[in-house]
Amino acid sequence: MASIGFLGLGIMGKAMAANLVKAGFDVTVWNRNSAKCAELVALGARQGTTPKDVAASCDITFAMVSDPEAALALCQGPNGVMAGMGAGRGYVDMSTVDDNTSKTIAGLITQVGGRFLEAPVSGTKKPAEDGTLIILAAGDQSLYDDVKPAFEVMGKMSPYLGDVGQGANMKLVVNMMMGGMLSIFSEGMSLGQKAGLDGQQILDIVDAGAMANPMFKGKGAMLLNENYTTSFPLKHMQKDLRLAVALGDQLEQPLPTAAIANEAFKQAIKAGFAEEDIAAVYKVIK
Amino acid sequence: MASIGFLGLGIMGKAMAANLVKAGFDVTVWNRNSAKCAELVALGARQGTTPKDVAASCDITFAMVSDPEAALALCQGPNGVMAGMGAGRGYVDMSTVDDNTSKTIAGLITQVGGRFLEAPVSGTKKPAEDGTLIILAAGDQSLYDDVKPAFEVMGKMSPYLGDVGQGANMKLVVNMMMGGMLSIFSEGMSLGQKAGLDGQQILDIVDAGAMANPMFKGKGAMLLNENYTTSFPLKHMQKDLRLAVALGDQLEQPLPTAAIANEAFKQAIKAGFAEEDIAAVYKVIK
Amino acid sequence: MASIGFLGLGIMGKAMAANLVKAGFDVTVWNRNSAKCAELVALGARQGTTPKDVAASCDITFAMVSDPEAALALCQGPNGVMAGMGAGRGYVDMSTVDDNTSKTIAGLITQVGGRFLEAPVSGTKKPAEDGTLIILAAGDQSLYDDVKPAFEVMGKMSPYLGDVGQGANMKLVVNMMMGGMLSIFSEGMSLGQKAGLDGQQILDIVDAGAMANPMFKGKGAMLLNENYTTSFPLKHMQKDLRLAVALGDQLEQPLPTAAIANEAFKQAIKAGFAEEDIAAVYKVIK
Amino acid sequence: MASIGFLGLGIMGKAMAANLVKAGFDVTVWNRNSAKCAELVALGARQGTTPKDVAASCDITFAMVSDPEAALALCQGPNGVMAGMGAGRGYVDMSTVDDNTSKTIAGLITQVGGRFLEAPVSGTKKPAEDGTLIILAAGDQSLYDDVKPAFEVMGKMSPYLGDVGQGANMKLVVNMMMGGMLSIFSEGMSLGQKAGLDGQQILDIVDAGAMANPMFKGKGAMLLNENYTTSFPLKHMQKDLRLAVALGDQLEQPLPTAAIANEAFKQAIKAGFAEEDIAAVYKVIK
Repeated sequence: MASIGFLGLGIMGKAMAANLVKAGFDVTVWNRNSAKCAELVALGARQGTTPKDVAASCDITFAMVSDPEAALALCQGPNGVMAGMGAGRGYVDMSTVDDNTSKTIAGLITQVGGRFLEAPVSGTKKPAEDGTLIILAAGDQSLYDDVKPAFEVMGKMSPYLGDVGQGANMKLVVNMMMGGMLSIFSEGMSLGQKAGLDGQQILDIVDAGAMANPMFKGKGAMLLNENYTTSFPLKHMQKDLRLAVALGDQLEQPLPTAAIANEAFKQAIKAGFAEEDIAAVYKVIK
Repeated sequence: MASIGFLGLGIMGKAMAANLVKAGFDVTVWNRNSAKCAELVALGARQGTTPKDVAASCDITFAMVSDPEAALALCQGPNGVMAGMGAGRGYVDMSTVDDNTSKTIAGLITQVGGRFLEAPVSGTKKPAEDGTLIILAAGDQSLYDDVKPAFEVMGKMSPYLGDVGQGANMKLVVNMMMGGMLSIFSEGMSLGQKAGLDGQQILDIVDAGAMANPMFKGKGAMLLNENYTTSFPLKHMQKDLRLAVALGDQLEQPLPTAAIANEAFKQAIKAGFAEEDIAAVYKVIK
Repeated sequence: MASIGFLGLGIMGKAMAANLVKAGFDVTVWNRNSAKCAELVALGARQGTTPKDVAASCDITFAMVSDPEAALALCQGPNGVMAGMGAGRGYVDMSTVDDNTSKTIAGLITQVGGRFLEAPVSGTKKPAEDGTLIILAAGDQSLYDDVKPAFEVMGKMSPYLGDVGQGANMKLVVNMMMGGMLSIFSEGMSLGQKAGLDGQQILDIVDAGAMANPMFKGKGAMLLNENYTTSFPLKHMQKDLRLAVALGDQLEQPLPTAAIANEAFKQAIKAGFAEEDIAAVYKVIK
Repeated sequence: MASIGFLGLGIMGKAMAANLVKAGFDVTVWNRNSAKCAELVALGARQGTTPKDVAASCDITFAMVSDPEAALALCQGPNGVMAGMGAGRGYVDMSTVDDNTSKTIAGLITQVGGRFLEAPVSGTKKPAEDGTLIILAAGDQSLYDDVKPAFEVMGKMSPYLGDVGQGANMKLVVNMMMGGMLSIFSEGMSLGQKAGLDGQQILDIVDAGAMANPMFKGKGAMLLNENYTTSFPLKHMQKDLRLAVALGDQLEQPLPTAAIANEAFKQAIKAGFAEEDIAAVYKVIK
């Protein structure tokens, strides 16, 4: 495969880039704080001086930064990706950004002749290290084909979802289901315990049947222990529910269950739990 | 362990009784149509002549019949269980009956000095044959302790849930969660496909993450194939949602998500899908 | 018109019977505490000794007591209405009772050859005194025709609604609308004030337009003054919403707005406002 | 009072301007199609040549055009209001525009030293002719005080609601209540008729009680006659419900009843009734 650039070596990016190096890819890394490059260089990576430099010297450049502002900043300016990107080169943004930012970046890259793929991931530190992320890729299909071997090193699945924007849509759909599941789960746990059933027994029985899923197991334990240490902030879930309902408005798809789950999460924000884990929705339901 | 009676050799009962015989228990079987006893006798079971006879000659009698009326009929009349049940003997009704029937049977049995356990099961033919049912036991705790070895042969879990009625309550809680999950799942599948995403890709991505569960996998395939062959009739799910919401009314537990899922299933009944599988709720959501 | 009996001289009954006497009807009254009869006798009424005696001596007997138990008790026993009721006589129960009690009383009366009408009223003390009640009549149509002149004295409208049970159904429909209106009204008042609008201005603007109604005016003032003095107890509204949703289940009519309003009132009961006025639902919404 | 300009002589504007002229105000009118000015001139109005000309020659200029684009266009360009507006002059936009357009126009006017008031109205042709509109004024308070005499000629109430934006917010609150009322009303009418009650009787009984309101009377007749001739297009109601729920998101105010009403109207749009009257929501509920 072609030479690869990797911009952004935070918790996620470092693990992902390391997996690429270990798999034998020719990788050039860059990070805003260049000290973080040392570990990757020790594994065999080259070190780039600027995003422009990396984009100019590699066939395909990946980016994994923390938010939409950082993702946009990487591309722009005299040392940005756009300045280095030539016709036919590829740029794969794996950061989690909103739909608009994703389309803006796509526009910038294609404007200078580059190919673009949005590829937000589902999964945190451990799956990044284990190469078991879920990669939601959308955009230029030829670029998707070219980077598929790299995706297979970083993730356990990396379906091609269509035009730029479909990665974000898929995330909304998945998170909307998650929000609805947490609402009904919280209601069930509340009803059962009010009826005198034991919370752990409810969890055990659900876990033995057709509804068994890692989320109920994990969040169920949190809720019985009244421990809402944030893994996925509740306010982000409410935002996704809001966006999903808005997408339903746009597509004329009624979503009553999602709409009601959205109100439950809004109630939790009103009660002051915006920064706690999504499991804290239970506190306003019970 | 003590001698065991088993009343009712339908698809479920035959498989459960066979497992008890194979495990070495001393089992006496009875069925309304006595021809069905032959297979069990061939395995080593004795054959009883009436429910009264079985109840009188065994320490503990199990029952597994198709509905509340049949469960009640087994106990009453000159040849019924009550007529044969003496002080200290045990009766375990594993049929799925409503709360009132369960309490009525409990009253009849304790009235003649017997011990009673309601033990509805979750799971169908295959788990009955494999001895992997989920048994929801509630009632007399000493009887529960006595029959635990038999439960372990028939099921993969058989928690003791408390007083008579708690088995039914647990089923309501579990089915209410299932109804809510199906509603949000159907909404997510509808929204995603309206947004241009591929249905199978949505299923695959959900199945790779924290929400992965056998029900979404199974029902998801049905819904993509527009195949609603009944495994769990939709009207029964709506009944359970209705009862769960009513239990919430009684216990002062608001259940907005369940209430809205109930309306979705009611909509599906109105549309004529009462006898189809619960997955058919998708048809009124999409 | 024929001779009239009137059983029950509480706040409502006394005012209604007085209007009948003043209008020139030949009225015989009875009350459990006979002291309350004096006032009516002073107006020109006769005094009966027992419900049986009244029913036996009058062509048509009205009843207006406080609850289902009292309504049923009036009919039964050696001194009850049944004992005095002969073929063709009429019995009109204007008490607010549930559907089952109404049907039970209808059965008792028709069993002894009597004609029966359920006729619950909408309206409190003032309309009872002013003769402006809304009377919801259902049952024997010939009896309805016979008592129409008396209804016209007691109420401003008294439509015939059909078979016994339809009076109760009409009350459910009307109260369900009221519950839903209060929910959306409370949400609107909450949203507006959170947005910085003045509560009184919202009320004034609504009151000037197509939605203007006495309830918003009355409850709106209560809610701005944080005064929830009970006129219609919140727990009764929740019961009616529950029964309306249950009627929807039975008739396969989805009622999502009513179902959600039911959950809001349930939330208010959970928060301890069961005995306050229906307007107190605002406290859990705002 | 000062000299008045009036821009836009459609059905609404013509009636409003005529009332001002008849009340003795010194009015200069302008309309894109100047033929429409004749009628007003006949009543005693002067005729302006351009919006710029009107704004420059009058102390206060009113505008009443059909949509946000037209409202914005009036202000901009060489012949626009901005070009004629001097320091201290007033501009009152009575068109129904969205929040953003209103704020944009406010910015344009204040930028050239003018004073601005948004004043959308509630009411259609008849109230415009009768001078009984409800005027929702927000923005510059000194201008509000100056135009109050003119508002009193055009409307029956014209409260001052606060900063620019509060007029739009008030409309959202009021329309959200309307949408929720229509949902529960449609559910009640559906439930009652399924239960065998007569639709007209339900309307009559509601109309005799505390919930009586012109909207139920008007829409109720439409719904019994299956006549959905558009007075308020359903799609606009759904838009307002969507915006109200979004405002709730922003202000952390849960709005479950409104959210569910939104889904009902969305269902009606999906069913193809977007252009019909708001009463057509009944068609997807019944």
